[in-house]
Amino acid sequence: MTAPNEMAADLLAGVLARNRRALGRALSVLEDRTKEASWLLGQLYALSGNARVVGITGPPGCGKSTLVEALTKSYRGLGLSVGILAVDPTSPYTGGALLGDRVRMQALATDSGVFIRSMATRGAMGGLALATRDSVDLLDAAGYDRILVETVGVGQDEVDVIRTVDEVIVVTVPGLGDEIQAIKAGIMEIADIFVVNKADRPGAELAVRDLRAALEMAEAEGVKPPILTTVASEGDGVDDLRENIEQRYDAMESNGDLLRRRFLHLRLRVENILQRRILAAAADLLDLEAELVIAWEQRTDPYTLADRLFAGVLSHYGEPGRPRG
Amino acid sequence: MTAPNEMAADLLAGVLARNRRALGRALSVLEDRTKEASWLLGQLYALSGNARVVGITGPPGCGKSTLVEALTKSYRGLGLSVGILAVDPTSPYTGGALLGDRVRMQALATDSGVFIRSMATRGAMGGLALATRDSVDLLDAAGYDRILVETVGVGQDEVDVIRTVDEVIVVTVPGLGDEIQAIKAGIMEIADIFVVNKADRPGAELAVRDLRAALEMAEAEGVKPPILTTVASEGDGVDDLRENIEQRYDAMESNGDLLRRRFLHLRLRVENILQRRILAAAADLLDLEAELVIAWEQRTDPYTLADRLFAGVLSHYGEPGRPRG
Repeated sequence: MTAPNEMAADLLAGVLARNRRALGRALSVLEDRTKEASWLLGQLYALSGNARVVGITGPPGCGKSTLVEALTKSYRGLGLSVGILAVDPTSPYTGGALLGDRVRMQALATDSGVFIRSMATRGAMGGLALATRDSVDLLDAAGYDRILVETVGVGQDEVDVIRTVDEVIVVTVPGLGDEIQAIKAGIMEIADIFVVNKADRPGAELAVRDLRAALEMAEAEGVKPPILTTVASEGDGVDDLRENIEQRYDAMESNGDLLRRRFLHLRLRVENILQRRILAAAADLLDLEAELVIAWEQRTDPYTLADRLFAGVLSHYGEPGRPRG
Repeated sequence: MTAPNEMAADLLAGVLARNRRALGRALSVLEDRTKEASWLLGQLYALSGNARVVGITGPPGCGKSTLVEALTKSYRGLGLSVGILAVDPTSPYTGGALLGDRVRMQALATDSGVFIRSMATRGAMGGLALATRDSVDLLDAAGYDRILVETVGVGQDEVDVIRTVDEVIVVTVPGLGDEIQAIKAGIMEIADIFVVNKADRPGAELAVRDLRAALEMAEAEGVKPPILTTVASEGDGVDDLRENIEQRYDAMESNGDLLRRRFLHLRLRVENILQRRILAAAADLLDLEAELVIAWEQRTDPYTLADRLFAGVLSHYGEPGRPRG
């Protein structure tokens, strides 16, 4: 497919040359989902699939950012380039970022083999996961060897985000207690590696023991995820973590797990986009607000209204008729 | 609309008579979403809207069930009937319930003015929130005066569930620390009342102070939610909580907040159903799996594939053509 315009072609060339300004602009184009975005993503997607995409998740205060920074340095020591996507939590009601934008990991910001992007909040359901995954594709196509996606594993959007990466690292710290582990159960089940960070604090051994006990209770199928300890601020245990990430990834590649996961990710992503399409169509083609008000006043139940809206969208695209299938 | 068959008509009559077996069967019919379900829900929905629907959420171990039980007794003391929906957490990957089914609140199970239902996991995205809301409508139409929806406020489904109730009570306990409060930030913003349960434990005052500080930082608009203390196992503070729930509800009724919330709930629910319709249509009408495999092999990006599927669904319902609008 030819580029829709010269700007888009230049942008793609800039991304593939890993020009920082082009990367930043292209990420914004993808987030804004302009016409150029569709073409750009199609091109980038076809070139992606080479990077190892690793998610790092854990509660606020567990030292994720410091760990991501230390891990990046460890990869840089091997000559590998690293893209970092930092995902801020969003509130379901206000759509506002809770932690705000911070200037982060400044030591790395000047390294040309590292690119850091803070994902803005996307508000709408599933939007953050889609935007993050699009950004992963872009950094992947640009040739970054490793992509680290850092999220606070708490909200619904966050869980969606972490379900789009190849490999999941769950970080905890000593002293959070049983409650935390129960709370993070949804995330725990998709963990490939556990890390107890700040392991020089009292209670580190207990935290490891608690995690091990929780894993044994869970009766997970397949390989039990290892539990590693780090002191990210000192770099302790970080090379070991990096080796574990790579070994686990090698295993996923050879046993077919990676392909299976990526196919599942494609499915979830396509479903997510389809869901957004129907809502956009209902909002664009029909007077959704008026339909809601009428249904509200007539006490029409939501299923009946949804059926009416669905039929309304269909009838806009062609003569309504009997299903063909 | 006339009933689709005698069974459905009998079921509706049984529900409206608050026959326990009919209630249980009708809830199952709604969950299974049979043809009778559409008719039944339409009838029930038109009769609903009278109950006060209160969500009680908090981390595992905070004593939610005990509090719900105590609150129910307090309402029963006023002669009000109570429906209880207990929502179990589900795992995003396995779809399995984490806590399992427990026989709960046995003291109340024999009271004819109380009906308790444990919501099964629904697996698919948004399914739990829809099923819970349908069940609320049923208990509402059946004439229960108060409906208490108890959830563990952790996963994505859980947040969706708590966004469908009229009024949100967030429960915590002394000693969980700052981390918990940060984690529950998404839920915190939609809280109408905070409860520090197990307030006879050390650290209760500190927990109240921490919550107050967190609320002040949040700069919430409108009324600040009160922070109450209870010892649910002893019944301490429970009548006071009930009074606060009712006062807050009265205020929401008179200032229009209740209508605004319920209209928003209708919108979210209709959107959720529409999203499920398009996925169901894509799965029913097209060979989704084959389309995914082809896209995978050709490295077609997910947006292009979603567009193709969307067009495919539309063309099944009528002659494809130019959009009319």
